[in-house]
Order: sequence, then C-alpha cells, then structure tokens
Amino acid sequence: MGAREERIHPHNRHGQLRRRYQVIRSATVELVQDLSAEDCALQSMPDASPVKWHLAHTSWFFETFVLEGGLRGYRCFDPHYRTLFNSYYVQVGPRHTRAERGLLSRPGLREVLAYRAHVDEAIARWMDGQPSAQALDLFELGLHHEQQHQELILTDLKHLFSRNPLRPAYRAAPARMKRDAPALEWSRHAGGLCEIGHAGEDVCFDNEQPRHAVFIAPFRCASRPVTNGEYLAFMRDGGYQRPELWLSDGWDARCHNAWEAPLYWEHGEDGWRRFTLHGMDEVDPSAPVCHISYYEADAFARWADARLPTEAEWEIIARAVPVAGNLAESRLFDPIAAASSAGVPLQCFGDIWEWTASAYLPYPGYRPAAGAVGEYNGKFMVNQFVLRGGSCATPASHLRATYRNFFPPQARWQFSGMRLARDD
Amino acid sequence: MGAREERIHPHNRHGQLRRRYQVIRSATVELVQDLSAEDCALQSMPDASPVKWHLAHTSWFFETFVLEGGLRGYRCFDPHYRTLFNSYYVQVGPRHTRAERGLLSRPGLREVLAYRAHVDEAIARWMDGQPSAQALDLFELGLHHEQQHQELILTDLKHLFSRNPLRPAYRAAPARMKRDAPALEWSRHAGGLCEIGHAGEDVCFDNEQPRHAVFIAPFRCASRPVTNGEYLAFMRDGGYQRPELWLSDGWDARCHNAWEAPLYWEHGEDGWRRFTLHGMDEVDPSAPVCHISYYEADAFARWADARLPTEAEWEIIARAVPVAGNLAESRLFDPIAAASSAGVPLQCFGDIWEWTASAYLPYPGYRPAAGAVGEYNGKFMVNQFVLRGGSCATPASHLRATYRNFFPPQARWQFSGMRLARDD
Amino acid sequence: MGAREERIHPHNRHGQLRRRYQVIRSATVELVQDLSAEDCALQSMPDASPVKWHLAHTSWFFETFVLEGGLRGYRCFDPHYRTLFNSYYVQVGPRHTRAERGLLSRPGLREVLAYRAHVDEAIARWMDGQPSAQALDLFELGLHHEQQHQELILTDLKHLFSRNPLRPAYRAAPARMKRDAPALEWSRHAGGLCEIGHAGEDVCFDNEQPRHAVFIAPFRCASRPVTNGEYLAFMRDGGYQRPELWLSDGWDARCHNAWEAPLYWEHGEDGWRRFTLHGMDEVDPSAPVCHISYYEADAFARWADARLPTEAEWEIIARAVPVAGNLAESRLFDPIAAASSAGVPLQCFGDIWEWTASAYLPYPGYRPAAGAVGEYNGKFMVNQFVLRGGSCATPASHLRATYRNFFPPQARWQFSGMRLARDD
Amino acid sequence: MGAREERIHPHNRHGQLRRRYQVIRSATVELVQDLSAEDCALQSMPDASPVKWHLAHTSWFFETFVLEGGLRGYRCFDPHYRTLFNSYYVQVGPRHTRAERGLLSRPGLREVLAYRAHVDEAIARWMDGQPSAQALDLFELGLHHEQQHQELILTDLKHLFSRNPLRPAYRAAPARMKRDAPALEWSRHAGGLCEIGHAGEDVCFDNEQPRHAVFIAPFRCASRPVTNGEYLAFMRDGGYQRPELWLSDGWDARCHNAWEAPLYWEHGEDGWRRFTLHGMDEVDPSAPVCHISYYEADAFARWADARLPTEAEWEIIARAVPVAGNLAESRLFDPIAAASSAGVPLQCFGDIWEWTASAYLPYPGYRPAAGAVGEYNGKFMVNQFVLRGGSCATPASHLRATYRNFFPPQARWQFSGMRLARDD
Repeated sequence: MGAREERIHPHNRHGQLRRRYQVIRSATVELVQDLSAEDCALQSMPDASPVKWHLAHTSWFFETFVLEGGLRGYRCFDPHYRTLFNSYYVQVGPRHTRAERGLLSRPGLREVLAYRAHVDEAIARWMDGQPSAQALDLFELGLHHEQQHQELILTDLKHLFSRNPLRPAYRAAPARMKRDAPALEWSRHAGGLCEIGHAGEDVCFDNEQPRHAVFIAPFRCASRPVTNGEYLAFMRDGGYQRPELWLSDGWDARCHNAWEAPLYWEHGEDGWRRFTLHGMDEVDPSAPVCHISYYEADAFARWADARLPTEAEWEIIARAVPVAGNLAESRLFDPIAAASSAGVPLQCFGDIWEWTASAYLPYPGYRPAAGAVGEYNGKFMVNQFVLRGGSCATPASHLRATYRNFFPPQARWQFSGMRLARDD
Repeated sequence: MGAREERIHPHNRHGQLRRRYQVIRSATVELVQDLSAEDCALQSMPDASPVKWHLAHTSWFFETFVLEGGLRGYRCFDPHYRTLFNSYYVQVGPRHTRAERGLLSRPGLREVLAYRAHVDEAIARWMDGQPSAQALDLFELGLHHEQQHQELILTDLKHLFSRNPLRPAYRAAPARMKRDAPALEWSRHAGGLCEIGHAGEDVCFDNEQPRHAVFIAPFRCASRPVTNGEYLAFMRDGGYQRPELWLSDGWDARCHNAWEAPLYWEHGEDGWRRFTLHGMDEVDPSAPVCHISYYEADAFARWADARLPTEAEWEIIARAVPVAGNLAESRLFDPIAAASSAGVPLQCFGDIWEWTASAYLPYPGYRPAAGAVGEYNGKFMVNQFVLRGGSCATPASHLRATYRNFFPPQARWQFSGMRLARDD
Repeated sequence: MGAREERIHPHNRHGQLRRRYQVIRSATVELVQDLSAEDCALQSMPDASPVKWHLAHTSWFFETFVLEGGLRGYRCFDPHYRTLFNSYYVQVGPRHTRAERGLLSRPGLREVLAYRAHVDEAIARWMDGQPSAQALDLFELGLHHEQQHQELILTDLKHLFSRNPLRPAYRAAPARMKRDAPALEWSRHAGGLCEIGHAGEDVCFDNEQPRHAVFIAPFRCASRPVTNGEYLAFMRDGGYQRPELWLSDGWDARCHNAWEAPLYWEHGEDGWRRFTLHGMDEVDPSAPVCHISYYEADAFARWADARLPTEAEWEIIARAVPVAGNLAESRLFDPIAAASSAGVPLQCFGDIWEWTASAYLPYPGYRPAAGAVGEYNGKFMVNQFVLRGGSCATPASHLRATYRNFFPPQARWQFSGMRLARDD
Repeated sequence: MGAREERIHPHNRHGQLRRRYQVIRSATVELVQDLSAEDCALQSMPDASPVKWHLAHTSWFFETFVLEGGLRGYRCFDPHYRTLFNSYYVQVGPRHTRAERGLLSRPGLREVLAYRAHVDEAIARWMDGQPSAQALDLFELGLHHEQQHQELILTDLKHLFSRNPLRPAYRAAPARMKRDAPALEWSRHAGGLCEIGHAGEDVCFDNEQPRHAVFIAPFRCASRPVTNGEYLAFMRDGGYQRPELWLSDGWDARCHNAWEAPLYWEHGEDGWRRFTLHGMDEVDPSAPVCHISYYEADAFARWADARLPTEAEWEIIARAVPVAGNLAESRLFDPIAAASSAGVPLQCFGDIWEWTASAYLPYPGYRPAAGAVGEYNGKFMVNQFVLRGGSCATPASHLRATYRNFFPPQARWQFSGMRLARDD
C-alpha cells in the first residue's frame, strides 16, 4: 500500500475503516457458511490453499501486522499459528511449507473460527485506542488482503471440487437471463505520452506506484472480451493442434498438460460442458471465455490476427469506465454475457480478469513498502504477467483501474480471460 | 481366502460369523470416534489413505463382493461409490486414483457412516437368507479385510499427524510399567525338511497356501526382537554413515531420503524422541525398534554379524507360540518391552511386524482365489518382502503363524521391526 | 569368486590363466575395433555405460585388485582413473557418478587404449613374479569380470544405436539359415530334495555358493524358450491391454512406459520389425522372443496358463545339458530359432537369458568374498530377479549351469527372454 | 532480420557477403580444430548442444533456407539431416529431440565436416547465380545465425568440460596484463522521450524492430560492470543466505540448486577459484563477474541499493560507444578488467552480456519475419530477460547497440554479468 497524503479527517477515516472491517470480515465467513469442515480442510494442488487456511491466514495478517506491537498486552491466540499461517513473509519468520497446507487436520475449522473471533475482538480494542494514520494504513492493507483471499477461497474451492468425481456444487445455479453477446467493435486510441499508475490519496498497493509517463503508439481495442463462441471457433480451427500459433513455452505447456480446451471444460456426448461453482453447466457462447492461461490467450490472439493489450493500453481505456459489473456482489461467481451499451468498453470490470501483454515488473521508481509487508508484491516481479480488471469473484470495493493482478503464464484456475487489441 | 473343508456345523458357523461381523464392524467405528471430520479426510502420502476412505472401502467390500449379486433387490447406496471406493480391483471396474483419495471432501464423514449403516442393515438381511458356505467364505474374507484396514487406519493416521507441526495425539498416553528388555538369547534349530503354509479348515488368505515342503538348514534365532537400545548402538557406531553395511538400493534410499534414524524419531536438545499415537514420547531402550525399512533392518543385521530369518525359519519357530501379546486389544498402539519368559521366543506376535529375508513370492502350486478377489494378494508378488507376526495395531483374531504380511523394502510407516537369525 | 580347493598343478593354472588373459583382453578390443571414438564415448541412459568406460573399467579392475599392492613398484597410469573408472566399490573410494559417464570426452579412446596396454604390460610383469594362488583367484575373477563387460559393451551399444534415428548397424547382417522352431514339448520332472549351487574346484562367483539342498515339487518344463511367434499371439490377444494378466507393478510399468511390444520393436506399414546390432530386421516367428522385462515374461506366462521356472528348477534341468549354443563366439549377436533335437531341453545356453521366478537373494549360508570384491554381487540382492542360461552375447567360457545373472524386473535392454514351466 | 531499404549497390553487397561467408564459416571450423571427435559429440545438459551439432545445424540453416528452393538441382547431403539438425522450426518439419542431441554418435565429426564442405560448395554455386536481394537477406541472416552458434560452441563446450573431473582446458592460458578495475562512477542521464530499436538499412534481427518511442525517467548508470571483487563483498555479506535480497523465484532457484557463488566457481583450500576455457584459474577481483543468473544479478543490485538498467536505458547509453572491447577476436574467451577511460561508459561491448531489468517482449508494432524464419525470435518472447552488449565469446561484427540477446532468468552458462543503474 503506497504512501499517501491524508486528507480525510482522521476521525472519519477511523470510523469508516471500522465499519469496513466488520463488513469485509463478515463477508469472508459468509462465503464458507455452507461448507463442511472437510470442504475447508483439503488442498487440491500446491498453488491452491485450503479454505480453512485462508480463514486463518487473513486473521494472522491482522495479528502479525496490526496487533503484535500495536495492541498493548495482546495475547496471541496460539504461538504455533505464527508459523502455520505465515504465507511467504520471510522477515516474519519460518513458514509451514505451502504444498503441505492440506496436511493439517488440526487446528480444525471450529478453532480457526475461534481464532477469527479472537482477532476481531482484539481489533475492536485496538481501534478504541485511536491508532495512528500509519497504523491504519497497515490495517487498511489487511482489508484489501482479506478481499484478495475472498476471491482465492472461491477459485481454490472450485479447483478442489473439480477434482472430485461427484462434481459437487458450491451453491445452487442462479436463474439467469440468456442474451447474445454484443457485436465486437474496435475502438481507436491515439495513444501518445500518457501517465499510468496510481496517484492521489486513495489506497492502493505499492506495485501501482509511482504514477509515471509511458509513450503509447496508436492502437485499437476490442469493445468486449473474447467469448466462448469465438474461442470454440479457434478450437474448431485446430487452435490446440497448431504449434505455429503458440509461444514455444506455451506449446510445451499445452503438450505436457494435454490441454485441449480451457480448464474445467469436459467433452461428453453432448459436446463441451463446463464445471462451475454451481456444478456442471453448458458453455454459453455469449459469455466471456474463462480459465485460460496466458499461453492460450496469446495463441488465440495470434490466430485472430490480433494481440493482447499492454497494461498501459488497458489502463487508459478502463479508467474512463466505472468499476461496476458482474462482480462478487452479484453472487453469480460465473461470467455472463455483457449487456450491450453502445460506445462504451464493456466488462472492463467483472466477469473475468484480462491477461495483458505486460510482464509483471516494477514501475520506474518503484519502492516496496517498508518492513515485512514490502514482501507483499515486489518479490514476485518475475515470470508472471499482469491481469487487469477484476472477475465475478472480486469484491467491487477491492478494484480500481490501476490495479495490477499477476499470475504465471501457465495459471488457469483463476477467472482469467482476455480482450483483444491491435496495432493501429 | 483359501479353499477349506467345512467341518463346523454350518448353522454354527453362520451364527459365529454374524456375531463377529458386529464385533469387528463396531471396532472399526470405535477407532475413529474421537476424530474430527477433518482428521478423517486428509491423505498424507500416496501410500496412506484418509481414515474416511478406509471406513467407506471396507463397506464397499461387503457391498461389492457379498451384497451385489448376493442379496436380491439390494439397492446400492450410491452408484458413484463403486468407483470412488474401489481400491485396486480392475475386474470390478474403474477406480479413483489412489494418490487423489485426499481430494474428496464429499462424501463427508457423516455420509460415509450412513453408508456403513446401510451396508450393515443389508448384511443383516442377507444373513437372514441363509447364504451358502461359499458365500460365507467371501463374507469371512471381508471380515479379515476389515481388520487389515483397522490397522491401516492407525498407521495412516499416525503418519498424517506426524506431518502436522502441532504433533497432535490420537489418544492420551497410557500409564505403563517400565521394565528392562530380557537378555538376548540364541536358540538353535535343526531345520531339515519341513512343511510350511496353511493347511486344515480354518480361514486363511490364498497366499498362505498350499502347505508345502521346504528344506531348512540348521540355524539360530534370537529370543526377542531388536530393541531401541541395540539400534541406538548401531546408530552411534555410524550405522547410517557406512555404505558397506547396506544393500546398494538401501544406501540409495538412505541418501535420497536423508534417513538418520527410524521414522518418527526426532533429534532435539534432549537427544532422540519419538512421535507416537499419544504424541511425542521418549525412546525406551528396552522396547523393540519400530518404523524401520527392510533396508535398515538388513543393515543392522549385517552390523550385528547376523541376518534376518527367512519366512520359513520364522514360521517353524512361531507356530509353537500362542497368538498373544501387545496386540490391538491392549489399546497401547505402541511397542513395549517384552516380559521375560525363559526359553520361549518372545514377541513373535504383537508389538511389531518382523521383516524377513524372504521376497514376497507365490508358494509352489499357488493359485489365486477365483474372481476379482483373486487380485487380493497375488498381483503384488514382486518388489516386496514378507513380514511376519503382527503388531500393536493388529487385532488378535486376525493373526496366525502362517500369516504373510508384505511391504516394499523402503516402507517405514507400518509398525515394522526385526528379529535376528544366524547360520548355525 | 568362491573359495576353492586347488587341485590343478599351480604352475599349469598359472600358464593357463596367462593365456586366457591374452585371449579375453584381445576379444574385448576386437569387439570395438570397427567403432568410432564417438560411438565409444556416448551414454544413452543411466543403466548403460559408454563403450570407452567399459574398456577403461575392466583395466581399472586389474589395476586396483591385482597390480596395486600386488606388483612392487607399479606406477598407476593416471591417479584420476581410480575415481573415474570405479563402478560401485565404496571400499575402494569415491566414484564418478554413474549417470555422468557420458560427460567425459577426456580421456579419449586413444588414451583409454593406452591405459589398457599399460595394464597389460604390468600384468605380464606381475605374472612373471609367480603370484600366489589367492592372488590368482582375484586375477581370474578379473577375467570373468571382463567377459561380463564384453556382453555389456554389446547391449549398451545396441541401446545407444537404437536411440539414433539413423538406426546404425554395428556389423553387417549375417547370412543365416531360416528354420521353423521345434514344436513345444513339456518334460516332467519329479523334483524332490535336490542340491543346487556350485561345488567343487572350478571358478564361480560367490553368489553361486554354497551348494545347498532345496525341495522341489514335481513340475513340467518347456523344451525351448517362447518364440516371437508365440509372443505375437499374446500381443494379438490383447496382452498389453489386459491388466488382469499383469502384476500390479508390471501394469504400472507398462502404462508409464507405454509398452506395446518388446524393446526395439517398431511398428510400421509392414507390421512389426526389430532393431538389431545389424540394423532393422524382420521379426522371425521361430526365434526366441527377446528384450522383454520380467513383467512381460510373467504376464505372458499367465496368459499361457503357465509360469516361469524357479532358478532351482532351471538349474536341475540345465545341468544335464552342455554349455553350447548361439553364444558370443558365433558372432551373430542375435537370437535364432533352435535346431530340433528330440528329448533334450533346447537353448538353455545361448540366444537369450531366461527370466526365472526367483528373486535374487543370498543362498542359505552365503558369505560375500572378503575385501572390496565382496561388493561384487552381494549388495545387489534386493529388487532383482535371477536370469539363467546365457545369451548370444555371452562368451561360452563365462557360463555354467549354476551361473546367476540378475536384473531389475523392468530391465529390457539385455538379451532377456523366457522359458515356461508348469506345476505338475 | 528486418525489412530493409537497399542502398548498397547490389553487386557490392553480393561480393561483401561472399567474403563474409568465407570468413565466418572458416572461423567456426577454426574454433574446433583442436578438439577431438569425442569433445564434439557430447551434450552436458538439455540447454547445451554438442559442438558437432552446432557445426551441422549452421550448415542445415543454409541448406534449408537458402539452397533448398534457391539452388536449382541442389542435392541434399542426407535427407535425414533435415530432421536431425532442425533446432526448433516447426514449419520446416519434425525435429530430433533437443535433449537427445548427445545420443548421436553418427554422423561422426568427419561426416559433419564433409556436410559443411558440401554446403559451402553449393553456396558458391548459388552465389554465382546472382541471387535476389531478398534471398541475400536470408543468406545474411544465416551468417548472423552462424556467429551466434560460434558463441554457443564456446559456452556449451565450457559447460561440458566443467563436468569432467579432469577439468580439461580448451586452450592454453593467455598471458595477460593484470590491472585494477577503474573506480566505479555514476553518470546521470536526463531520459525523456527517446527512440530505441533498429532503424535504417543495416542488418538486424526482427526483434530489434520497429524503432519506437519510449519515455525514460532520469536515471544514473554505472561506468563499468560489477567486478568479482564487488561480488565477493556481496557473498561475504551473506548475499546467498539472505532471502530478503532475492526475488521469490530466485530464492527458490538458489535453494533448489544450492547456489553459493557464480557458476564455475569452486571453493578450495585457497579460497575461490574459477573454471575457465583455459582450465582452473584464480578469481581476478578487477574483472567483471560472470556466469551469474538474472536472479543473482537482481539480488546483488538490491544489496547494492541499486537496480539493473532497463534495455532502453542501456541502449541510449551504449549507442554512443563504439562496438569494441574484449570480444571473440581477442581470443581470450574470458572477461578481463577494463582499461580506464575517463567519462566513457566502459565494457558496454565485450567481456560479458549484461542482464537488464526488461522482460523479453515484442516491441510495439513488432512483426515476425515471414516464413519459417519468423520462428527465429518471436516465439521465445516469454519467461526470458534481455541481455545487452556482447561477451568475450561474441564476434565483433555480430553486434550493435540495438541487439537483444535473451535467456531465462535462471540461465548461468552464458558469459552473463551485469551493470548497475539507479533512479535519479
């Protein structure tokens, strides 16, 4: 979270954050209320974590960065948790091995929820003590951190359920209106010397800063993401069988993993179907394609005689658009077709994260935050690509146009799709 | 289960088996009654299975081999279970991948217990129908199968808990008398042309048959298993640093896995301690060493200027001894020092399984049982060694002197130890 | 090499060994005379070694076990070679990593041949010194060791050439008479209490000793090995698609390695063809099937309602047969159909090594040879199976009926086939 | 190779290229003239290729892209070579597996040299036919391609020799003057809107185009690369033990590979020494540090409170400097200390390739060359970082300020080092 000038009246900020804490912490617990203790305990792959671990780690974040050292006389819930629920902060101390988070039947879900309550109660006392603006910065970072893990709870659970032959549903299928995708349009942008990155007083992560100038050549940008229907055309045209469409590493990944379609797609007698958080469902040709890797997005774009936008291109387009759409609040947790809206770029926020052509690297002049939270973003700036926007599993208040999400090019279990761009 | 002449009055056998079914099935559930749903859902390595899986698979065995085809109008509990809980019977159909048994949060523990009740109720009805002697053979095999999984529930849970930094205890530590191990004595056996293997009407597995002649040279056999104290002397003498004591594959395994002591031993400020089902505990120098691989047993024996007994040697000694000792019924679930008893080979049954020098191979004239249960034993007759006796986690009624247990030479998570032999 | 009473007049033995040394050492060099330096330098897999390494290692054996300590004033050729060309003798000192034998362009073939000459010259001087009978025992072991590596030179080179898309030929295809395989006959053997293993004064390896009694049940044995034609019938009958025919580990190996036929078989427009040391050739239905693993031999036997013989069964049959057949001296280096010969077991020696049903384990009372050569055989007595007989690449003088060859059950690059047996 | 306006008189260009072909092709053969056939045949890791393969592949390039289709009646040397020596051009057809280039003893070095002569002779005839400018473009690309492989011959051979315990020398150690490294100075650059990338008529690779505008913030740049002495200070300060200095993936690589120093450094009784192409040598504290990964360069920079320059920053500095220095022509094949030269950035070319902070991605408006040579650069634009400059193994005529070399961040076997930069 970047340095910020404080202009809100401190007292107001204090009260706002207190309320947001309650809302966000409750939302997390609400996400898991229909899950069994077993659903919350399992880990389906090293990239994903058990739901229970997310519940504990988000509390650990407040305990470690806010309460310890911040609340006089704070008694930690269990000293073992300092190691068990540390994700990757080497400056905090040792960490339980990531790939073994699914070997912990103890503490059980009940104890983890008690841990949450213990932290919530202590945070209330800490709030009473009128913490400094700097302390509130870390606290606010903790809220954004918790929202990130809300999304991960959903994506990790989806992956776990997909590995179960019973294909369980997280929730009942929503009733939803079917509609055709709007026609694809290309808008032209003049580019030039632009500024991107975060400025001003609002909260952001350190990796969105500093705001800086970039030169952008004229380009064109698609009015909406690529749809399942368009992706099926790529598949029918041999997209997964033509190495000349792929990056070399991408083709290796496709062969090694035997990819033939997006993650969660299954081919049966009735053609392709998808596993979703409401169980198996059809492939809606109008909805944005989802659960594809950077490699697949890149290959599709080459097939379509286009390319992915850079993150700078994406940002100058999306910052004109309000942060709204099919986000976590809609509780669909699945991408849907866009409603038509002439002349406005559609679905910049919501439905899917959009792979960009930009490697995840520091902005010029980037400085990681001081202390252990400086490990939050900076040390991952290699071998990853930036995704922009936000998905059907992202809370609205978590997003902004400058937000930089990032994953390795082979990752597919996030709600990741793409939008096309072209040189002008 | 081998062919058998039927001499018990059929009605008596029927009644006995009905009672044994109730006792054994209850014992399984009793083993898990203090565990959480999460404890029962996790898998710590491909060799081990979740407790919940054991609970379901043992019911699957009765459903598949007894009820389906045996009980008119039987309605299977859930058709998915046929695949989910099939262990390795290719003739029954497809199987859920072994290494992914820990990815199943559904069905939950509660449903698995309902599955057990469903099968128990149907078995009661099947029993009412006066099944044939041949059908009862399969039923009785199911009881022995269930007892094997009772032991695996304990060994697999122990492994899971050992991977948790909290080192949870399955049960409170028992109060137990400390005593010194009896002095090691060597008894001489003349050998000659002997018969081993199972004969007569009692139940046995197919791999114990046929009874057959073997020629045994004169040999000497240790009066009790190797103790922790003796094993510590081997360790102090550089046993884990001297490749000349080890088989070539054994030394590779020792280096690859960085073995420095038996499994579950941890070295701290106070020297070596052991993880047990009652938590961390001291290393009792008088108790049999446990959780060692065949490779370690073989290296120790070479260091001690001795060797492991063959399974034929072991059998002709142990068949003079009653099946009694520190078995599952003692509920210690941990090996203890033997009580001295002059002139009798000690601890042949109970405390630990004893590695023998015999590869697990078919006896001359071996025929696997007919049908899918013929896969029970025969297809594993390669790359494994025979262990004899029975451990602190084996039910007494499951054992006999001809019983052949088997594991790969690198396996350590069973209660496995050794007894020494020498050429005369 | 086992203990032996010395009855040959020592002087005669000395002279005989001197001559055999010259013959055997020359034979090794002759095997490689048509190879390029590059052919001799490459390693195709960790199990195989470069030809150059074999040339050096066999000299190393004489240098290490005979000349060092045996020849006063012996100057070693290059002190680095002590490590570079030590195969697995930990008591001799460190060893260059086996899997990296193919990373050594230096010393070149020329230097390795100079090393051989250096050792040969020193051996001649050592011989002049009238070494003791005990020293001659080690020397004779070196000769047998060299013969083993002659066979490995051929099998390792065959594997290397098979990985080259050019499919190069080691030598021109021999002109050979085609003939039908003799009809398969089953001879009955009464078994009983028999002695197997080596006795008497002739040379043998330590693992063939001591001679000891075994009890053998009556059995029947096939008059010749399984042919390609018979194996093709197994393949056509779905042998590679039916898991119920295979050991569990065998099926895993078959799936993991995608085995569909013996090693070196290739399926093309004209059906199956084989890569041989004289290039690609047809599959002769009358010749013994070759380059199969233990797993395949075992599955074939099960399919044929038979089994593999134990090594004891094999030995009591084969010891009545002279050591003769299609051996290395015929210079075919490829199995051929047997000539019919009524009533005699055919092809016990030559053509192929025969997998037995016996795990490679110590005989009762086995003692490894003293010193570092005790590592020759004993430390490999786990996870391997015994093969008996001798192949088209084995020198005749290397073999005898008690000879125990051994390889892991998945090994296929040796000239390995099988003969069937049945319970009587 | 990018599109280019043709201004040189075609006939002059033709003659120049003919002479350059002779010079460059001869230089390649000269590099290997002291190597044995075995030195040229071995492959030490999948990333490296046998010298012989480089000799053949560079000829294959001319055969495939120039002679086939370009020279009427051209008879290919051997049709198998089309597959054997295709590196990665999927549009040309199948390729021999990269990791198995070291399994080819045939064709031998002699045949590969004959292949070169065959191609050289055909190229002479092709030249006589007055090829078009477009055909000459591909021909010229082949010359640059050959120069790249000259460097790879040296780096791959160095790696191979480093794996040989004899540590062979490629050539005798050069006599060289020792001198202290010039003091490190920081020059300030105003940045602003700059153009980078290649423009004009000279040859370049497609990835250097198009020339385009970038905005660069003011920055400072080091006057010379980081030296061994400076790197040793980082090592002494615990650089390899402090995860907070490293990227997360970098720390994983450091732990997984147990890096404690640059590649080829060995610690002995006399401290650190280096393996070089002239054998083991001392670590010259004044010479640029070499054989480090991007991860190590990045960690060092963080430790030094600096960063790596972006490729744009590097280019605007280096384009003022002549392409001269310790390049392949000096035949040292090892980095040396810079000669002091006030006010000029030192060693931009020669000694070492310099890691930049820029991921290897397409320039805005990038178009790969048409046809199969379009696979030359474009399909590798993921998971790699740009290196700039040129090393002691790069021919001078191969380089220019816009040249973009690229390797994965973990690669260390190239002559890779770094120069520091800082935000102003």
